[in-house]
Amino acid sequence: MSEVAESRLKLRVGVAGATGYAGAGVTGLLLRHPEVELVQVSSRSQPGRPHSETYPGSECDLVLREELDGSACDVIISALPVGQSGRRARGWLDAGALVIDIAADFRLRDPGSFRQWYGEQHPDPELLAGAVLALPELDPEPLAAAQLLALPGCFSTAVILACGPACSSGLVEPDIVVDAKTGTSGAGRTAGAGYLFSELDGSVLPYGVSGHRHQPEMEQALNSLSPDRYQVTFVPHLVPMTRGIVATCYLKLREHASISALRDAYSSGYLGKPFISLDDGPKPSKLATGTNLCHLSIQEQGNRVVICAAIDNLGRGAATQAVQVLNQRLGLAPAAGLTREALWP
Amino acid sequence: MSEVAESRLKLRVGVAGATGYAGAGVTGLLLRHPEVELVQVSSRSQPGRPHSETYPGSECDLVLREELDGSACDVIISALPVGQSGRRARGWLDAGALVIDIAADFRLRDPGSFRQWYGEQHPDPELLAGAVLALPELDPEPLAAAQLLALPGCFSTAVILACGPACSSGLVEPDIVVDAKTGTSGAGRTAGAGYLFSELDGSVLPYGVSGHRHQPEMEQALNSLSPDRYQVTFVPHLVPMTRGIVATCYLKLREHASISALRDAYSSGYLGKPFISLDDGPKPSKLATGTNLCHLSIQEQGNRVVICAAIDNLGRGAATQAVQVLNQRLGLAPAAGLTREALWP
Amino acid sequence: MSEVAESRLKLRVGVAGATGYAGAGVTGLLLRHPEVELVQVSSRSQPGRPHSETYPGSECDLVLREELDGSACDVIISALPVGQSGRRARGWLDAGALVIDIAADFRLRDPGSFRQWYGEQHPDPELLAGAVLALPELDPEPLAAAQLLALPGCFSTAVILACGPACSSGLVEPDIVVDAKTGTSGAGRTAGAGYLFSELDGSVLPYGVSGHRHQPEMEQALNSLSPDRYQVTFVPHLVPMTRGIVATCYLKLREHASISALRDAYSSGYLGKPFISLDDGPKPSKLATGTNLCHLSIQEQGNRVVICAAIDNLGRGAATQAVQVLNQRLGLAPAAGLTREALWP
Amino acid sequence: MSEVAESRLKLRVGVAGATGYAGAGVTGLLLRHPEVELVQVSSRSQPGRPHSETYPGSECDLVLREELDGSACDVIISALPVGQSGRRARGWLDAGALVIDIAADFRLRDPGSFRQWYGEQHPDPELLAGAVLALPELDPEPLAAAQLLALPGCFSTAVILACGPACSSGLVEPDIVVDAKTGTSGAGRTAGAGYLFSELDGSVLPYGVSGHRHQPEMEQALNSLSPDRYQVTFVPHLVPMTRGIVATCYLKLREHASISALRDAYSSGYLGKPFISLDDGPKPSKLATGTNLCHLSIQEQGNRVVICAAIDNLGRGAATQAVQVLNQRLGLAPAAGLTREALWP
Repeated sequence: MSEVAESRLKLRVGVAGATGYAGAGVTGLLLRHPEVELVQVSSRSQPGRPHSETYPGSECDLVLREELDGSACDVIISALPVGQSGRRARGWLDAGALVIDIAADFRLRDPGSFRQWYGEQHPDPELLAGAVLALPELDPEPLAAAQLLALPGCFSTAVILACGPACSSGLVEPDIVVDAKTGTSGAGRTAGAGYLFSELDGSVLPYGVSGHRHQPEMEQALNSLSPDRYQVTFVPHLVPMTRGIVATCYLKLREHASISALRDAYSSGYLGKPFISLDDGPKPSKLATGTNLCHLSIQEQGNRVVICAAIDNLGRGAATQAVQVLNQRLGLAPAAGLTREALWP
Repeated sequence: MSEVAESRLKLRVGVAGATGYAGAGVTGLLLRHPEVELVQVSSRSQPGRPHSETYPGSECDLVLREELDGSACDVIISALPVGQSGRRARGWLDAGALVIDIAADFRLRDPGSFRQWYGEQHPDPELLAGAVLALPELDPEPLAAAQLLALPGCFSTAVILACGPACSSGLVEPDIVVDAKTGTSGAGRTAGAGYLFSELDGSVLPYGVSGHRHQPEMEQALNSLSPDRYQVTFVPHLVPMTRGIVATCYLKLREHASISALRDAYSSGYLGKPFISLDDGPKPSKLATGTNLCHLSIQEQGNRVVICAAIDNLGRGAATQAVQVLNQRLGLAPAAGLTREALWP
Repeated sequence: MSEVAESRLKLRVGVAGATGYAGAGVTGLLLRHPEVELVQVSSRSQPGRPHSETYPGSECDLVLREELDGSACDVIISALPVGQSGRRARGWLDAGALVIDIAADFRLRDPGSFRQWYGEQHPDPELLAGAVLALPELDPEPLAAAQLLALPGCFSTAVILACGPACSSGLVEPDIVVDAKTGTSGAGRTAGAGYLFSELDGSVLPYGVSGHRHQPEMEQALNSLSPDRYQVTFVPHLVPMTRGIVATCYLKLREHASISALRDAYSSGYLGKPFISLDDGPKPSKLATGTNLCHLSIQEQGNRVVICAAIDNLGRGAATQAVQVLNQRLGLAPAAGLTREALWP
Repeated sequence: MSEVAESRLKLRVGVAGATGYAGAGVTGLLLRHPEVELVQVSSRSQPGRPHSETYPGSECDLVLREELDGSACDVIISALPVGQSGRRARGWLDAGALVIDIAADFRLRDPGSFRQWYGEQHPDPELLAGAVLALPELDPEPLAAAQLLALPGCFSTAVILACGPACSSGLVEPDIVVDAKTGTSGAGRTAGAGYLFSELDGSVLPYGVSGHRHQPEMEQALNSLSPDRYQVTFVPHLVPMTRGIVATCYLKLREHASISALRDAYSSGYLGKPFISLDDGPKPSKLATGTNLCHLSIQEQGNRVVICAAIDNLGRGAATQAVQVLNQRLGLAPAAGLTREALWP
């Protein structure tokens, strides 16, 4: 088969917001994805320049466009800031593209909840009904038919993977405490003085204690897996590392439920899922760095079950999960373009 | 007054285990303490050499002894590893010294509990009845008369300060979740390969999930403040920083209790305590580094109260708290030899 | 003596630019300085608020002024950005204050050199002739009579202390290579995206390779110590730590000169200088953190002498050196308000 | 073609010392190398257990052998500690295997030099004459015929790539200063207390100032490229990061030589070399992390040329360079099993 013919058979994919951390991560992955031709990249801040000149280490020589052309793409992966993909999704969908959004625009079902947490009217609330919150391994709303897919946030991804089987099993009480630790890259490239090396080095900082935007996503997703109504108390902490999230989840078994039954729910629920690693105890979070892996451990202490999840916030929490969802939605090999291998040390 | 005469009026203090992180910290503080003459320092590993030649940055020129002589010291502060001060305390006490132990030997009342958590028989269980677990600001067992004082562990210190007024107020339910993050220095200078820079950098690691030695201290101390029986679920995490502990404590208000009543309990309980800082929200943990400060914040999220405490694990969690207890026990100025000032950044 | 009377005998000192890293460091030191009354602090960005509300960890309750009043201060220490103290110094001097400038405005003798390196006309070039570049231990221009004192930059301080005795001894050739490594705080609180934790963590970055602003200061200072004309090749590197500078200086002995003669030049030159530590080999730079110390080591490799200097860029490189110069200029005890004690680890 | 038949066509490769940082890195790369079948792995410390159970994140399920069997391997890559491959190489070669050694055993031509720097007699000095120091892009001794190939050390790799074209061009004087900064992983997994996170965090430490083992390798390699006799002054520094080396090289142009002629020597010397990146200025070292890249920049300051090189000490400085040399020696695609893509941030 000639190279030209082969390239026609590849999926044409565009990345919106390709010069932020998440968007550039997707761009790098798609450049090496065997079934994908990366056809367009956009940047609101630096249009007109090649991607490789604007992002450190990039090998993508495509010139950054101001906007993507939906008719030239089979799939658009958007890593624009919140509010921006909401303004563009309808145009992309109408032009025939499948849309996968990394930002928060299409996660929450309820436009009122969007307004409450993001401080603005949703730019296109009618699209919300048809959007699917993509939870690849749990898949409560099958991805197969969706045209508009939203990825859960980085914290939500860790928490949903950590607690999903517990919630769907009905073995735990509907009151969950989640304490999360995150690397600094979650704040993005445009972060302010509070994210300077000098201010974060040598220090841990709890934040969002009275409420964080990812909390309603977690509750919505966990409740979609169960008839019960789960409540999540969620506090994130900034930790002096660049990448990684550890979510430590504190649950209580229901009366007559056992830890072994709970472990079985995870073993069977995640059977054959290549990106879930069920471990005997917690692993250092950097064993997930650069990968799509989620490390999970399930242990007991006194009257509680403690489930620890470790992911890369920019990998499984953003860029690699976008590729995983692309693969799953389009029936490609689950690991196409992805790796399970982290650098150690 | 001649210099000799003046020096006689100072407290003669010795430090056992002066070449570990905690012991060297105490040594440095005592060298500058206006009411103290540092008279002896010991090291099991490097006796016969001056302290200043064995510990980085030390300005203490005393030659390290194998053992302290209790009759030459008014006070002995022991930073020996667990099990070692238990073997020596009786001799020091018999010789007339007041003993302040930074290790775990005299924290737990119950010798069975000691054996369970430390894997050995307590070396001198008869001393336990007379030992006092020193909680300087809470002081449930007045320090004034004690000859053998044990400091709570670094995690316990943070948790007891964070939850003590809540427990003694009776405003919260007796079921507490504590998620702690610690710098690496808690493991000491003799730590193994798992504490190498290469292995800890860029990573968070939960540990002790099924049970940690500081948990029974926390329960014992909190229960000494209240007729209720508090249960603490406690999970620590290693974080890539050298010093600092953040303890994030998740509590529930009792029915009819209010957050403002809870805040009042803290304001009044810690009134006039120079080393407690009640803040509107969490502070970066490095604002406690090198100090005896405990930063506390009390906030609500949904049905829970979240109390965050930040201390320096080697400061308030060890060396500076030893000096604070010395000051309080002997009626010296509370801040003698101590500082509230951290470097920023 | 009454407290009022005693306070009158203290030096009245003001700090301009008290909410940057260097200015806040000076502010904290002066608050605890036994001979000083801190009377005014200023901030261009946040006037009208107490210092303690604008800077993390500050215990200074003075309200920030827009400008300092020179007639109310015996001494003004300015930590304003470059160009700002140049505009204000004449007013302060005319009002009778002694001025110590941490910024670069009065370091270079030659207004043309200032324009070349800082890209603007010097705001008050006539003052340059009377300004003294303060080199406390070397003191080629005695500080005693000066009314306008400039501190060398952080890199320059390390290099001048490392190479000064070598240059004044005439034992080394006039061609020096200096490779410096700095913590990130040198860039200040208003630094941009390149100083985010995410971008600097896990990485070293050489910068200013074709020329750095501190290089002409170094040459001017070293040449003031010697009839020779020294040339310095200087390359700084950003390193993932908050504080600290290591300057590694590569020199060649002149024919017939010996390393032992060179070492003697340092021993005698720095005799009785409490803030110089002549070590057998390099020390970890954090042994200088928070102190006014300069650690120096002098070793040979093949045909070269390698002198390593370690300082705290915000301590000896800024805030503590300002206090040291204040003490020396006014005949106070050299260590008043300063410490040699660093935290370890 | 059946899977069995296909696997026969692959190179059978064994890794000795597969549980150290370098050896485990090679193991991970070879598992994914399209032309290689990883057939044996050995570990002196943990024989009998699967590699995946002994090394964090490993997906290699081969059981660790005490020793490799040279007759079962087409190629053996040894990551044993210095002295160990020297004892085994003859047996492996006699059994027909090609040997690539990551350690120092076969780098230095002169057994006396080995004894001087490593403190022991070389275990098999007769092999030294036939060993080739592999410099893939410079290739002064063609790799094609060699059966025993030694990789230069991590520092040497950076310095040889940085200075090689300058030396072979004859445009620079034979007196070079190299100041290197390294991550902590160069010390390996068995490093002592000086490599604890607590001791290295927040600090830079020069070491080996009076002489480092990699220095004679550098001189030998650079002198093999030129009739001149180059002298290298070399000082490494420990920096608080896990991976990465920056070598800052200070050279002087010969009279009548120009910087543009020097740049041409690099452009032509590295033409078509996929793992050399000639940049306008220095790049953050983490743009090389996990890759086989060497970033190089060539700039002038005053009378000197400054060449900065950045590599991953465990990548280009060990594991990925071993694979690059394997590819080149056996005529495989240069980038087989390798990547140029680093994570950012």
